Amino acid sequence: MKLMFLGFGTVGQGLAELLIRKKALLAKQYGLKPVVVGIADFLKGSVYNPKGIDLKKALAYAKEGRKLSELPGTPFEGDALSFVKKVNADVMLEVTYTDIKTGEPATSHIRAALNKGMHVTTTNKGPVALNHASLQRLAQRKGVQFLFEGTVVSGTPLINLIRDTLAGSEIKEIKGILNGTTNYILTKMEEGLSYETALDKAQKLGYAEAVPDADVKGWDALAKVTILAGVFFGAKGKPSDYSCRGITKITSADIAKAKKAGKRYKLIGRIWRQNGVVKASVSPKQIDLNHPLAGVGGAANALTVTTDTLGDVTIVGPGAGRIETGYSLLIDLIKIGGGV
Amino acid sequence: MKLMFLGFGTVGQGLAELLIRKKALLAKQYGLKPVVVGIADFLKGSVYNPKGIDLKKALAYAKEGRKLSELPGTPFEGDALSFVKKVNADVMLEVTYTDIKTGEPATSHIRAALNKGMHVTTTNKGPVALNHASLQRLAQRKGVQFLFEGTVVSGTPLINLIRDTLAGSEIKEIKGILNGTTNYILTKMEEGLSYETALDKAQKLGYAEAVPDADVKGWDALAKVTILAGVFFGAKGKPSDYSCRGITKITSADIAKAKKAGKRYKLIGRIWRQNGVVKASVSPKQIDLNHPLAGVGGAANALTVTTDTLGDVTIVGPGAGRIETGYSLLIDLIKIGGGV
Repeated sequence: MKLMFLGFGTVGQGLAELLIRKKALLAKQYGLKPVVVGIADFLKGSVYNPKGIDLKKALAYAKEGRKLSELPGTPFEGDALSFVKKVNADVMLEVTYTDIKTGEPATSHIRAALNKGMHVTTTNKGPVALNHASLQRLAQRKGVQFLFEGTVVSGTPLINLIRDTLAGSEIKEIKGILNGTTNYILTKMEEGLSYETALDKAQKLGYAEAVPDADVKGWDALAKVTILAGVFFGAKGKPSDYSCRGITKITSADIAKAKKAGKRYKLIGRIWRQNGVVKASVSPKQIDLNHPLAGVGGAANALTVTTDTLGDVTIVGPGAGRIETGYSLLIDLIKIGGGV
Repeated sequence: MKLMFLGFGTVGQGLAELLIRKKALLAKQYGLKPVVVGIADFLKGSVYNPKGIDLKKALAYAKEGRKLSELPGTPFEGDALSFVKKVNADVMLEVTYTDIKTGEPATSHIRAALNKGMHVTTTNKGPVALNHASLQRLAQRKGVQFLFEGTVVSGTPLINLIRDTLAGSEIKEIKGILNGTTNYILTKMEEGLSYETALDKAQKLGYAEAVPDADVKGWDALAKVTILAGVFFGAKGKPSDYSCRGITKITSADIAKAKKAGKRYKLIGRIWRQNGVVKASVSPKQIDLNHPLAGVGGAANALTVTTDTLGDVTIVGPGAGRIETGYSLLIDLIKIGGGV
């Protein structure tokens, strides 16, 4: 199985580490012997080598700030799209930066790879939130797989849980905590911090960006809600079609009041059907303390899936992290390889 | 796909209902057209019909207390083991009664079916807790599948979650709430009831048996712990090899004391490795209120799986129920049929 990386940042490097660490297990348990034949990175440079790139070396170069184009193989000049067209592989890993407004350039990368008959796995929310249906159709036409476990709650296997292990069930509603940063802030506010102090703490820990809007205004959760609405409810809406309210207006007084009533504020993304129409939203909600979502503190993520067969099933797991998100690509690779 | 039911009690009827309700979906989405060619039930009588048994009629007969042997087809006299040897099918569904001490007669039924080259799915804890390894080897030798999603937390897809959607991960520890009855009693005790009153309530609701030992002494949880230890840790222990303490000695005072310390009592089944040796136990533990398991109230079940790739992943769902447990067989059938 020949792999091509588009992007070699945190997530790509996380996968590379796992491929090294789990080499023997992948071969033994799943008959999987992945060879990386190309890496293209906007900042670190690009290289391809049909004989296989030494991942340990690639990780060392990335760490030392050396150009990947200096690795053994053929250096490549040009953008990622030309790289996809030039280099041959069985699977393309799209882990370049996310643009949730246009889905580009990732969508073009994916389209080019699928058109060449490559399987694609991605952690990039943009293309899946905006173009899931057309990319899935293209993949089907080409007889390849388009997988994206890591776009929602990182490697926590939500997509595969619903698609495979809940197969045959009707999905009536999905709701949950899709953003770890805001969950951390709300947890800290319940412990007594003001919104500003909690946000400051989240920024110091690297959970929140200097401009924290994507998290605190709910946009990140909204992108994930849009993906779930498209994938599991067949909705055609874009993120801007759904209502979205973040946590910026939640005060310590609100949280104290909820606590008194035996409840807890969580930023909840929700997708459901109402009179046959798919609805989706992101907004702060008071969750009863006896609901599994209430117990999810700190930076964890969690989703409750309501089905006709089992009622509610909730999964709780990490929503971010280098190895955690890298793992989402690994599980997609095992799936593409027919291992599960 | 020709199916044979051994046992047509609550769980078997739950699956039958799902097969009727989901007939169109199974055909369309998974190319699955199951036909039931035989039903053997100790109390309700046995029948086989290579052309297919009308499941609606079978359910109606069971409801009205009529003998299944009166259904169109050939009535069968004799025990379930002779039935397996006589009737041909692709998949045998073993849902007879559980004997956790001997695993019989279910183990013999399963062995006979596997030997005939049938796939087997079961919700019966006995054979899996006591004979998982040898049955799995037999299935492998015969080129068929032996599945048992419903033996732990009913249809909540724990087994498939670990085996498929966490593929490639090292499982370091599994711990959780494996018995809904005791969890209900502990929840009610925290609300102020005494152990005796809470047990009485659980009995009136049908959660606990008149002789509640299997639940309150932890034996039911222990059987599930033994299954998980065997399946995911390769342990060879029998239930009696592991330590087991139930909830009978937990007092209201204990619970109040835990509550004061920000904790909550749960009956926890746990499997882990210590110096390379697999350990397993069932005992009441004080769980921190910020742990996802603490938020699991009432009759729900939940397990936290600790992995090398994602850290902790927790799944919460129903641990019992007619349709819920019937669904565990359906998902196994979809798997056998190659649908997932």
